[in-house]
Amino acid sequence: MTEDKKTIAFVVYPGMTPLDMVGPLTVLDGMASTVPEFRTVVVGETKEPIGTDNPLKLSANHTYDEVPSPYALLVPGGAAPTLKALADEKLIDYVRTAAASAELVTSVCTGSLVLGQAGLLEGRRATTHWMFRELLGAFGAEPVAERWVEDGNVITAAGVSAGIDLALHLVERLVGAEIARTIQFVIEYDPEPPLGALDWSKRPYGDLKPLLEHTLKDALADEPALRDRLLAHTGR
Amino acid sequence: MTEDKKTIAFVVYPGMTPLDMVGPLTVLDGMASTVPEFRTVVVGETKEPIGTDNPLKLSANHTYDEVPSPYALLVPGGAAPTLKALADEKLIDYVRTAAASAELVTSVCTGSLVLGQAGLLEGRRATTHWMFRELLGAFGAEPVAERWVEDGNVITAAGVSAGIDLALHLVERLVGAEIARTIQFVIEYDPEPPLGALDWSKRPYGDLKPLLEHTLKDALADEPALRDRLLAHTGR
Repeated sequence: MTEDKKTIAFVVYPGMTPLDMVGPLTVLDGMASTVPEFRTVVVGETKEPIGTDNPLKLSANHTYDEVPSPYALLVPGGAAPTLKALADEKLIDYVRTAAASAELVTSVCTGSLVLGQAGLLEGRRATTHWMFRELLGAFGAEPVAERWVEDGNVITAAGVSAGIDLALHLVERLVGAEIARTIQFVIEYDPEPPLGALDWSKRPYGDLKPLLEHTLKDALADEPALRDRLLAHTGR
Repeated sequence: MTEDKKTIAFVVYPGMTPLDMVGPLTVLDGMASTVPEFRTVVVGETKEPIGTDNPLKLSANHTYDEVPSPYALLVPGGAAPTLKALADEKLIDYVRTAAASAELVTSVCTGSLVLGQAGLLEGRRATTHWMFRELLGAFGAEPVAERWVEDGNVITAAGVSAGIDLALHLVERLVGAEIARTIQFVIEYDPEPPLGALDWSKRPYGDLKPLLEHTLKDALADEPALRDRLLAHTGR
């Protein structure tokens, strides 16, 4: 019976970055296949296909109404469309109410801004994609530069691919290292970035402040209050 | 004009593993955003939502007919559904004909078995997910245990998450290291597997031969000729 299971809900919304969600979903669905006490669901406002920030369209298999009280929640991020999504009241309401009863509230990339907008990061340490990190201050959070940041039952991950690391950490936390390691083998997660690890002294785009300001002004032209609140946190 | 662009086609089919495709798509769509001479498309038999091996449904934005001659092709893999897909004549015909004029033919995970079934691996070095590696012999390929294997214009990657490494390699090959590094920053691909690198001396499931035989017999019950051809290559 699905109602007896611990439901891990992956939230989707238009314009999001699919990898933010698909990485952790693959890992945690692997856990659900191994440990039947869990199930994973993809939750959206609608089950109709939605566009993302690349040519892929994806579909939720449940609506918000159908999963009011998940055991755990994961909110993916993206660029400008995620900033726009901060003004999506149905999304923010769902995240807020689902999080209220959830054991675990997690995000990948700028999904943490969605958690922030839902009022879930006040006074917490949190992270997000490095380009957007300072914006966390607008939600009363303390921005931290780590691959993932755990503060109570709220765990936020860094940008895009960090969701895979977050999810393996969640599996270890929920059911132990042996299953986490097996899933790591199943998805053959033994990374060999062709150019090696990132050298953060060589990050691109130079001073991020003008880029962030432009992105916020463009994405939130119709939401001046939110835009100005975020503009106050674009860094030095 | 899209017809002037170099089209990178990501093939989708029912039951596939989404991460196989979404990882490389994210990387190569990042390249297409930066270098307008390229575009990425998701190609399927239909544009209707298709099921995958987890709760996510996804949709192609083009049909096979609409993308007969892509510049590059990427075929994702999966477990039993990908074995079944080896008997999908429309998929195999599309891969064979698209590959005939493509500059680059690539796969992730058991997507290389699809390339093999299309006759594209005869006499080539190739790889796939470690659990299925010996099956490559059924298609006249030489199985190789590397993260990705380049043989002429055919490049095959190891399991699931290896597609991200493959794609960064493709970006470096197509447009150089600087753009590849920028995309690596954009997807914040600086992996920190919580349990560290995989220790291949501790891989799970023990002797793979019985597991592979069971999987092949189950997935290919309706395709005895193909089943027996693959069963002859389940390892020692």
